Amino acid sequence: MGGGFFLKAIMTDAAFFSKIETLSLKAIAELIGAELPDDADGAMQISDVAPIDTAAKGHVTFLDNPKYVGQLEKTTASAVICAKRYHERVPDGVVVLESKNPYRAFSEVSAAFYPEAAVPMAYFETDGGISQAAYIHPSAKVEPGVCIEPGVSVGANAEIGAGTTIGAGAVVGQGVRVGRNCHIGANCVLQHTLIGDSVILHPGVCSGQDGFGFSMSATGHQKVPQIGRVIIQDRVEIGANSTIDRGANRDTIIGEGTKIDNQVQIGHNVEVGRHCVLVSQVGLSGSSKLEDFVAIGGQTGVAGHITIGMGAQIAAVSVVKDDVPAGGRYGGVPAKPVKQWFREMTALSRLAEKNK
Amino acid sequence: MGGGFFLKAIMTDAAFFSKIETLSLKAIAELIGAELPDDADGAMQISDVAPIDTAAKGHVTFLDNPKYVGQLEKTTASAVICAKRYHERVPDGVVVLESKNPYRAFSEVSAAFYPEAAVPMAYFETDGGISQAAYIHPSAKVEPGVCIEPGVSVGANAEIGAGTTIGAGAVVGQGVRVGRNCHIGANCVLQHTLIGDSVILHPGVCSGQDGFGFSMSATGHQKVPQIGRVIIQDRVEIGANSTIDRGANRDTIIGEGTKIDNQVQIGHNVEVGRHCVLVSQVGLSGSSKLEDFVAIGGQTGVAGHITIGMGAQIAAVSVVKDDVPAGGRYGGVPAKPVKQWFREMTALSRLAEKNK
Amino acid sequence: MGGGFFLKAIMTDAAFFSKIETLSLKAIAELIGAELPDDADGAMQISDVAPIDTAAKGHVTFLDNPKYVGQLEKTTASAVICAKRYHERVPDGVVVLESKNPYRAFSEVSAAFYPEAAVPMAYFETDGGISQAAYIHPSAKVEPGVCIEPGVSVGANAEIGAGTTIGAGAVVGQGVRVGRNCHIGANCVLQHTLIGDSVILHPGVCSGQDGFGFSMSATGHQKVPQIGRVIIQDRVEIGANSTIDRGANRDTIIGEGTKIDNQVQIGHNVEVGRHCVLVSQVGLSGSSKLEDFVAIGGQTGVAGHITIGMGAQIAAVSVVKDDVPAGGRYGGVPAKPVKQWFREMTALSRLAEKNK
Repeated sequence: MGGGFFLKAIMTDAAFFSKIETLSLKAIAELIGAELPDDADGAMQISDVAPIDTAAKGHVTFLDNPKYVGQLEKTTASAVICAKRYHERVPDGVVVLESKNPYRAFSEVSAAFYPEAAVPMAYFETDGGISQAAYIHPSAKVEPGVCIEPGVSVGANAEIGAGTTIGAGAVVGQGVRVGRNCHIGANCVLQHTLIGDSVILHPGVCSGQDGFGFSMSATGHQKVPQIGRVIIQDRVEIGANSTIDRGANRDTIIGEGTKIDNQVQIGHNVEVGRHCVLVSQVGLSGSSKLEDFVAIGGQTGVAGHITIGMGAQIAAVSVVKDDVPAGGRYGGVPAKPVKQWFREMTALSRLAEKNK
Repeated sequence: MGGGFFLKAIMTDAAFFSKIETLSLKAIAELIGAELPDDADGAMQISDVAPIDTAAKGHVTFLDNPKYVGQLEKTTASAVICAKRYHERVPDGVVVLESKNPYRAFSEVSAAFYPEAAVPMAYFETDGGISQAAYIHPSAKVEPGVCIEPGVSVGANAEIGAGTTIGAGAVVGQGVRVGRNCHIGANCVLQHTLIGDSVILHPGVCSGQDGFGFSMSATGHQKVPQIGRVIIQDRVEIGANSTIDRGANRDTIIGEGTKIDNQVQIGHNVEVGRHCVLVSQVGLSGSSKLEDFVAIGGQTGVAGHITIGMGAQIAAVSVVKDDVPAGGRYGGVPAKPVKQWFREMTALSRLAEKNK
Repeated sequence: MGGGFFLKAIMTDAAFFSKIETLSLKAIAELIGAELPDDADGAMQISDVAPIDTAAKGHVTFLDNPKYVGQLEKTTASAVICAKRYHERVPDGVVVLESKNPYRAFSEVSAAFYPEAAVPMAYFETDGGISQAAYIHPSAKVEPGVCIEPGVSVGANAEIGAGTTIGAGAVVGQGVRVGRNCHIGANCVLQHTLIGDSVILHPGVCSGQDGFGFSMSATGHQKVPQIGRVIIQDRVEIGANSTIDRGANRDTIIGEGTKIDNQVQIGHNVEVGRHCVLVSQVGLSGSSKLEDFVAIGGQTGVAGHITIGMGAQIAAVSVVKDDVPAGGRYGGVPAKPVKQWFREMTALSRLAEKNK
């Protein structure tokens, strides 16, 4: 990397989040509901969280993925959160905090050490208030306690609820409503969109632009008016540069608590249920419907006008062309029950082997 | 969704488009060239358009997708636009307006009710003129009747035609030319790009950045200068967060009337013909060529230096590695004639079944 | 395209880069280390570079892709750069400059004619300095010789090195460090990110937002704090609208000299080695690791927690689910050695043929 500006910069430790100084082992155990082993010193001060491969004295770490058991056996962390079955793999002198869900428990401890990290930071300055360099239409309604950063546009008749941050350069279009305690990322663009409370949009999200509706013909394609809206319910999170089209003649809806990763595309009229999970680069075609608690792996495509039932899980890089029943475990192109999919892949490998 | 800000907001009806009050049944029939049935009351006032599952008294709806015939049979709409063959499935008392292209006809009626929806709205305010908070280089040429919203940058020697809107935060780079009656979405970034008339770019489109050209070697990769441009012809529409690279040593061209969905990637030197349709997340590799009226389904990838012939249609989630003849119907990975593709999928399923 | 604004505009030649007037044939030969043929006139003035199909008298062109040999045989260029084996296909009167790497050699000549094209231009004006319309936090440190365009926000404690351009509307978040001689594209958004020297980010890149980490449960999904950073080393280039999440509890790292195309998604904790190449729409899942000189074709997905070894090459539109050894040539879904992948595709085609 040469000896330039960056190296010098990196030498001073660039920490973005402030950290609680220490937490006692006892406090950590209580936080996650773990029993402190009899021989452990509850007063021991833990100074940070760290992943299994870099955790050292004073740190608490965790084991979730069995792939890393080898690293567990060599850890020099002061404490480790893991399932009972890994207890004997933990080196002597490392305190074990048993948990049935080590990832969740570790997440809780991380949140305790880094309380600021629960919601994205403002971009320009902490607790910025309303910037003189934001353009807010006189007819817009902004509740008290809102942070609006430089370069933001808030259009006519838009409404923004208390405790919300609008990141630098974001555009809150005419008539858009953003609820309370939301974080709208820098350079997001919102039109024809109604957003609930405690919603997080990461930078570059575009919501509410025209759906892709054309009446095609041999003389050219005629735009079908897109007169619906986008409804984003409470506690939804949407990743950077994702796009959500507004409905053609109904609303596009993202249900409460649903988490959406980066670069996901959601077509017009789509209904995503509550607490769904969509991994990056997924595409949902127009008028598809996901019931609650559906999870879809990265880069998967879902065809239009189909329904994925409650709690169904779709593997990454699949193509869902037909309805999936509630609780289904599907994968492949086109997506089929996982067992059948694996069978097909195995059959093909064998056939190729035979033909060799 | 709790009882927060959003719920209250939603209770007041947030309508983004103003609507014509009513249209008579006769006027609607004339608009779409349908014959009014003898027993129908041409003076009946229709108050809105609605999809088949929510249409009620006073609404006109349509049937296009046979999947929804069950809903047609139960509709309480005042009138329905559908093909002749569904006539007998329509409940008594619902006026039938026959059409060979119900989707197009319905689209025309929608446009009549919502005349504002034909072109995206300005973000900040309706009929905004040139914002005091836009940065326009003194050497830029802006025709009369242009709307430039807050936070926009228009660079040196750029030109913008009459009737065009440049959405909040968009960047019109040095020397870029945008024609008349265009809508450039909020936070779009244009460089080295020439745009015709009546073009719509949705938010976040990046056009004219360097193509991905490197001369690779074991000591590192050297940038190949990208000295071409992007040409976007009249009546093109491009979806949110799509990216179009400028040519390496020729122009990247998007032909007249072509419609491109969200998150589409178009590499350097690509030539897209007139009236093509590219669904979301499609990727066209450098120097690929699409002739006129090509349609490509979502998430499909097209390899570099190949040609897809006039009117060819490529299924979603395919990979086009070789030339496709004019009029071809291709799909699969790699893409092949659709019949062959289906045959292969069937053969694999059977083989897996046999091996079970 | 009608007779509108655009056609008139196009008639005046809109050139975005200024060009060196001419270079002598001798100078060009020396630049690329080619021997000037005995009968060639070294003093001949070459006025431009051009691709093989449009090159004319006064131009130098090149042949790299054998697909275009037919065009080589008809070229009217003054000189052509090509491999020895194509020498006899070159028309009489066209000077041949032999090169083992014609693409690289042509790239060097292009760079000599268009010296401005080596780094993206500023958007607003050439040599713009710091715009009065940029918002720079008083605590930010900006070295001399920086160009900051209109609408840019530079947050508290951010640092920007000499010679860097921050494009219009970009957001350099609190505490972010950008090295020297970088180009940060218009409307990029940087948070929790440290950037080395000579880095190019094209427009719309989002770096450093929260990774996609949730502890899921039947009652909803709880955010896992993402306390790492993004480190982008020297001479990295990242394409438009790509997204790079910061690490969960370590750093996401993009190694020196790596080139990334548009709309690429890089998850939290990913480590990309030095001089890798990632083509557009690739997705790297969290905690995946690429060693140096890895090349990945467009739209390919890489699963989490796996390693792709040094110098491995992965075909476009593949899915990498397991470790790939150094130097491996892999492709397919899931990715396997290329030979095996081809064998499977062939076996399937034959089987389908047989079943016909």
